[in-house]
Amino acid sequence: MDNPGVIPVKVKRISDSGSAIQSDSLAIEEPLEIQLGYMRDSNQLYRNLSITMRTPGQDTELAMGFLFTEGIVSGKDQIETIEYPYQTEGEVKKDNTILINLKANVVFDFKRLERHFYTTSSCGVCGKASLEALNLRKCPILPRATPVISAETIHRLPEILRKRQTVFSSTGGLHAAALFDNQGNLLDLKEDVGRHNAVDKLIGAQILKGNLPLCDNLMLVSGRTSFEILQKALAGSIPIVAAVGAPSSLAVELANTFKMTLLGFVRDERFNIYSEAQRINDASKV
Amino acid sequence: MDNPGVIPVKVKRISDSGSAIQSDSLAIEEPLEIQLGYMRDSNQLYRNLSITMRTPGQDTELAMGFLFTEGIVSGKDQIETIEYPYQTEGEVKKDNTILINLKANVVFDFKRLERHFYTTSSCGVCGKASLEALNLRKCPILPRATPVISAETIHRLPEILRKRQTVFSSTGGLHAAALFDNQGNLLDLKEDVGRHNAVDKLIGAQILKGNLPLCDNLMLVSGRTSFEILQKALAGSIPIVAAVGAPSSLAVELANTFKMTLLGFVRDERFNIYSEAQRINDASKV
Repeated sequence: MDNPGVIPVKVKRISDSGSAIQSDSLAIEEPLEIQLGYMRDSNQLYRNLSITMRTPGQDTELAMGFLFTEGIVSGKDQIETIEYPYQTEGEVKKDNTILINLKANVVFDFKRLERHFYTTSSCGVCGKASLEALNLRKCPILPRATPVISAETIHRLPEILRKRQTVFSSTGGLHAAALFDNQGNLLDLKEDVGRHNAVDKLIGAQILKGNLPLCDNLMLVSGRTSFEILQKALAGSIPIVAAVGAPSSLAVELANTFKMTLLGFVRDERFNIYSEAQRINDASKV
Repeated sequence: MDNPGVIPVKVKRISDSGSAIQSDSLAIEEPLEIQLGYMRDSNQLYRNLSITMRTPGQDTELAMGFLFTEGIVSGKDQIETIEYPYQTEGEVKKDNTILINLKANVVFDFKRLERHFYTTSSCGVCGKASLEALNLRKCPILPRATPVISAETIHRLPEILRKRQTVFSSTGGLHAAALFDNQGNLLDLKEDVGRHNAVDKLIGAQILKGNLPLCDNLMLVSGRTSFEILQKALAGSIPIVAAVGAPSSLAVELANTFKMTLLGFVRDERFNIYSEAQRINDASKV
């Protein structure tokens, strides 16, 4: 198993047939501190960018995805190295801090980290401001016609997700995010205790492979869709987002604003289309 | 309906029987900015404490709970007022910013907000450091013997949660957190698109009623349990946390460290006990 995402645990299981001590598995949750700096900075001024609770594994992809989808870097060409700065110190393996060194010519205003991008002076804080903030970051309005995916293909996706999640199915504790092409072929799948982390790992891996923008792809997530999930998909130029669970109001609003196709309740050969239905071909059903 | 948590939406529904445009409901997600300040501060220096994506409604409870469970205030006696500072300005209702004014004699080091409490110099960032940080905040180690709740009572809780969630059952998009006494009587239930928000609303409401510590109560959450959920329950001195979903590794570790009873997969007349099983009486099953 190449992913250190689960640990064994003993549990007391209570049911109709009585109680018993049994073995079980838990999804690992550990904090990851993401630091930002410059490699040749003799003052070693690293700034703490974020601490997220994540499932260990694919931290490089997670950090890359987080920086990109939050609009802190525009691509991997702005990054010199991604490393574990403390891993080799002392006796204990310290892999819960990851450091991104920006290239020397990348100017980053660290003061930006102290302001939160949802706020605008014009309307206080609201969903509209959140959407406008994305506009300011020059997110693309996605081309409306492509790709077109058939309803038949969409119906098959949850089963593919479930089959690939078998490693962690015993824990019941991991969110998944998967990338598909427009024929329904699985391109990648990432898991994490945090659903936004699963998406960051997925998009981060694609950035590191040089595959962005993901204009012909669909992302399927195992849970619900929120503003944050849609925002990250938009940053990766993913035109279709599908979810096994429900969307929030702001997820639908964001999808409408940026011409993304949003699907919900994708399970049991059914689903709902909340926006931009022209990308889904359900002709065979009429 | 006293909760503005849902909005109607038109969706295109795809299924075996073809496609149709139908009405549906969405759980509302809107940002809430929590500001901290002093009422009689002539400079009006309000600091942005947090922006969270939440379902509108019970913002006062949410803000109160957030400040308390994150260790920023020790109780409602430190708070002078909680208000919507911009609600009366202009024509548009602006209720996505809430301001907590601390009492004049409460000293708060705003610099604390800039440091994250998970980090310690001794071990970098790890789950252990996260737990040690809670120790530093002098969280109580809960009394181990009380309360004792029967397995029969636990079995009944998910159904009570489901019945009370009917208002939002149509959206499928809301997390719930419910408080029960040790006889399984429902004391309160809160819902939100964010599961940590549902817990903050629940605990915040109890603080405002003067009901803390919640030493004889059980909290049931509709989803999974993470470090953050357990940390908030601990802050409220809730000795038993039950979840319909799975716990993470760090949730179990926190429960063990602070002598909390953690239950998972509470559904279909079964559940797992991950820690401090002596608070659950399953004698009738032997």
